[in-house]
Amino acid sequence: MRDPFANRLDAVTAARGRLCVGVDPHPASVAAWGLPDDIGGLEKFSRGLVAALADDVACFKPQSAFFEAFGPAGLTVLAAVLADIAEAGAISILDVKRGDIGSTMDAYARAYLGDGAALAADAITLSPFQGFNSLSPAVDLARSTGRGVFVLVRTSNPEGEAVQLATAHIGQAQPPSVGSLIASQAGEANQVAGTSLVGLVIGATLDVIDISLQGFDGWILAPGIGAQGGTMNHLKELFDGHPTAWRRVLPTAARSVAEAGPEAESLKKAVHSLLQWPVF
Amino acid sequence: MRDPFANRLDAVTAARGRLCVGVDPHPASVAAWGLPDDIGGLEKFSRGLVAALADDVACFKPQSAFFEAFGPAGLTVLAAVLADIAEAGAISILDVKRGDIGSTMDAYARAYLGDGAALAADAITLSPFQGFNSLSPAVDLARSTGRGVFVLVRTSNPEGEAVQLATAHIGQAQPPSVGSLIASQAGEANQVAGTSLVGLVIGATLDVIDISLQGFDGWILAPGIGAQGGTMNHLKELFDGHPTAWRRVLPTAARSVAEAGPEAESLKKAVHSLLQWPVF
Repeated sequence: MRDPFANRLDAVTAARGRLCVGVDPHPASVAAWGLPDDIGGLEKFSRGLVAALADDVACFKPQSAFFEAFGPAGLTVLAAVLADIAEAGAISILDVKRGDIGSTMDAYARAYLGDGAALAADAITLSPFQGFNSLSPAVDLARSTGRGVFVLVRTSNPEGEAVQLATAHIGQAQPPSVGSLIASQAGEANQVAGTSLVGLVIGATLDVIDISLQGFDGWILAPGIGAQGGTMNHLKELFDGHPTAWRRVLPTAARSVAEAGPEAESLKKAVHSLLQWPVF
Repeated sequence: MRDPFANRLDAVTAARGRLCVGVDPHPASVAAWGLPDDIGGLEKFSRGLVAALADDVACFKPQSAFFEAFGPAGLTVLAAVLADIAEAGAISILDVKRGDIGSTMDAYARAYLGDGAALAADAITLSPFQGFNSLSPAVDLARSTGRGVFVLVRTSNPEGEAVQLATAHIGQAQPPSVGSLIASQAGEANQVAGTSLVGLVIGATLDVIDISLQGFDGWILAPGIGAQGGTMNHLKELFDGHPTAWRRVLPTAARSVAEAGPEAESLKKAVHSLLQWPVF
């Protein structure tokens, strides 16, 4: 049986640093590598990026949407990318932002966290619009298969605030924001599981951490380094008041790394300039 | 060019009634038809259900999760199911509950709402955890390709309330709930588009409509009839105070219809007993 997700992530980040590289085969990025906007270009870009960085990076985050855009054939490429990441000894965090209830959530869990599933990753992202506890089939399956989940709590797009900072009426004297509530529920789920398999997604370009992280001890995926405007310095400052949480932040860069390609040496150089950053 | 989504839905529901049948190849439902829990069983169940009801039902709602659970091969079956629905002259509402921002949301839109996409449906479901306006790439593409979207606002699972009824602080004297805010934003998007391409998802088993539908004039997908405990009578009562909205409610039943199969005559009978219900 696979080791628990948190232990595997501890080990690989200790060895390679905490950088997570997004695999985002955006048509513009694929074109910038001189590749066509077709299934062949999708495959060469995505697998080429992972191959170039296979020994250097702890985590890769493929963005499912860009593969889904090519239909079933795109998903076949995604399966190959996930296998490449496993082969590299790195952790795959598949960005699918799924969320549903009951037997449907269970089917999503089987699709992406089940042993033997064609698209199984080490972890996936989840969206909690139907409430944190609606995601429990995924949390439960991840626990039993040694995998993990990262739940959206605070995204850096301005439209997210109306939902994520709304006041949740759950019978508390000081009602929390939706984001704070979900972070605390994630922390409780880790307590119950006895391992930090539930992580959070917090945008690297937020101005401040405007939710409570009290009681949450898991990993934090922080997308937005580079092309979206986030810097390592800003991210470190963002977590200044949260030193414990900071040790488990996974700064995530996608386009800014990819645009150094397609040459492997240039890609490695782009990654190493991020990894040289003091905290790693 | 395809007619606008709302016009096509008007026409087919006028001819066939407003019932939407869920295509949920849940392992238990597939087994109940005497089919194996494999890709062949998935295909026979899903295409068999659509074939049996092709002339009787206005809308089919395939649940993507059950197809994704079989990986790329499952998505190939889903593409065939979507083609069958189009062939039947019915409307496909693909339940994918996608939600993201920027170029990622754009990729999801191309995957499911783009002309020529392998998995293009007449409409998809969307999840607004990152804010309604983050979904605009899908709304924009749906408008230009004559397709539609249904945005989650109030789901009937108890865990959904903490998010969907949270108070959204958007600078109004009487701040709305998240669900009310999204419903009003959906209404505005329809105003801007000049056609009701943005619908809402409201669970049929809610006790009351506890959000405001003011300013919203689009379609409402109401899953939960049958196995989840919703009845047509309850659904009608639920919308008693919303007579205008009621005329565009699509009551959605999945397992309760499927369990009448696999014989086509029994499936038709199950659907006709729902369609005989007075309001249709």
